[in-house]
Amino acid sequence: MKIAVLGPKGSFSHQAGLKHNPHAEIVFRNTIWYVFEAVKNMEADIGIVPIENSLSGTISATLDALTDFDFNIIDELLLPIKHNLAGAGRIEQIKVVYAHPQTLSQCEKFIRKYLPDAEIIRTSSNSKSAEIIAKKHEKNKAAIVSQEAAEIYNLNIIKKNIQDSPYNVTRFVAVGADKAKMTGKDRTSISIYPQVDKPGLLYNLLGEFANNRINLTKIESRPSKGKLGDYLFFIDLEGHIDDENVREAIDTVRKVAIVKMLGSYPRAY
Amino acid sequence: MKIAVLGPKGSFSHQAGLKHNPHAEIVFRNTIWYVFEAVKNMEADIGIVPIENSLSGTISATLDALTDFDFNIIDELLLPIKHNLAGAGRIEQIKVVYAHPQTLSQCEKFIRKYLPDAEIIRTSSNSKSAEIIAKKHEKNKAAIVSQEAAEIYNLNIIKKNIQDSPYNVTRFVAVGADKAKMTGKDRTSISIYPQVDKPGLLYNLLGEFANNRINLTKIESRPSKGKLGDYLFFIDLEGHIDDENVREAIDTVRKVAIVKMLGSYPRAY
Repeated sequence: MKIAVLGPKGSFSHQAGLKHNPHAEIVFRNTIWYVFEAVKNMEADIGIVPIENSLSGTISATLDALTDFDFNIIDELLLPIKHNLAGAGRIEQIKVVYAHPQTLSQCEKFIRKYLPDAEIIRTSSNSKSAEIIAKKHEKNKAAIVSQEAAEIYNLNIIKKNIQDSPYNVTRFVAVGADKAKMTGKDRTSISIYPQVDKPGLLYNLLGEFANNRINLTKIESRPSKGKLGDYLFFIDLEGHIDDENVREAIDTVRKVAIVKMLGSYPRAY
Repeated sequence: MKIAVLGPKGSFSHQAGLKHNPHAEIVFRNTIWYVFEAVKNMEADIGIVPIENSLSGTISATLDALTDFDFNIIDELLLPIKHNLAGAGRIEQIKVVYAHPQTLSQCEKFIRKYLPDAEIIRTSSNSKSAEIIAKKHEKNKAAIVSQEAAEIYNLNIIKKNIQDSPYNVTRFVAVGADKAKMTGKDRTSISIYPQVDKPGLLYNLLGEFANNRINLTKIESRPSKGKLGDYLFFIDLEGHIDDENVREAIDTVRKVAIVKMLGSYPRAY
């Protein structure tokens, strides 16, 4: 089995891929879009991409790719995320910090407290940050990296677990052409694009789920790439599309909104 | 009047500050958090920060700062955003592109189509991208920058308006210690943190607004920085907190949720 993930080697996506299937061949891509393309072009059987983090929130590139491609979410995985400050110097010596923007936003409080005057240089991945620091090996430069990346690049860890909360988890989804069977403990993800503009429409739509005793676990508005105020809604709910109440609620919503099924899959929490 | 914005000079935030008050003294800060700090420390009268973009969505650092500081939104501004590819070479020669992550996500389709193999280097601001390219002046390097930044750094524009949609608008909010008076065409922003965990609670909360004929213009869930599935909801609605129906709805919601008033202000659309 081939799984496409965000590279490079040692990334959290790499770990998520191996967690889904320890024997899989992992195929690395540069962006979330190219992970989806790899599945479309059959260079991989499935793709595994981050969809939200408990500190920094939704990964919008994934919501956009789910909208633009026609795949199903077939599984979700939770991965605890720990960040470390790594480099050759001591914390007092550091003037420059390399970090991926998403990582940075999970360590904002640490940076404000301990490195308020450091120059921040954004990188394309945590592994890239590690690679830069391994090459430079200067005492006044550091990178924010995972334990795995620090090991791969043989970096000294200056301070462990610098993320803003001990509970920092990223939720990944596996996407592919197949569908996941009902397990009895499932989640369904859909996007809703209302076709009628009137006060209370969203409320009425949500009412369909409440009336069918369906628990919503997430709701998020995203600009529909038209004008501000024109939103798509991404909704996660408990249940499988093959559950009668879920199917009924979604069929009713379809009367006033374009509904895109993003998948029903076993839920991880 | 002093207005704190995200720097450096020539940033879209700079333009938004001058749009709010052409005679203001603009004070530049490095992050959204430090813009709020500048207001708190009275180094500026108000701060102006981006809150959402029609292509790339919510700016989560602003939602987090609105949660952590106690200021009011007193105004909102819409700024059309146009991006340009600038540098010394021709498009066929470009191997490296410098861009701010937010800018990059608004030009993803252009990059995929015209520069799929270019190395992408993320920067801390559009002006920083322009500064780097101005210094390097190599034909195989380019930056994604605004018209203003290209002018300040005297850059050649290779391709104009490369954002993924002709309609690309960023919404900014002005925040400060004062409150904005009712104008009759207002918006109110609140965050809601439900204190009861039961199916349909969000639906019931939204029902309070529907029953009071209040139109919701935005709803967004954000992880409450506790566990995944534990969300704060950011809601924008039409009306002013001094409107009787708005006050009544919010008072009712307070019975089952922690409500934080983020401000009532004249709406721009």
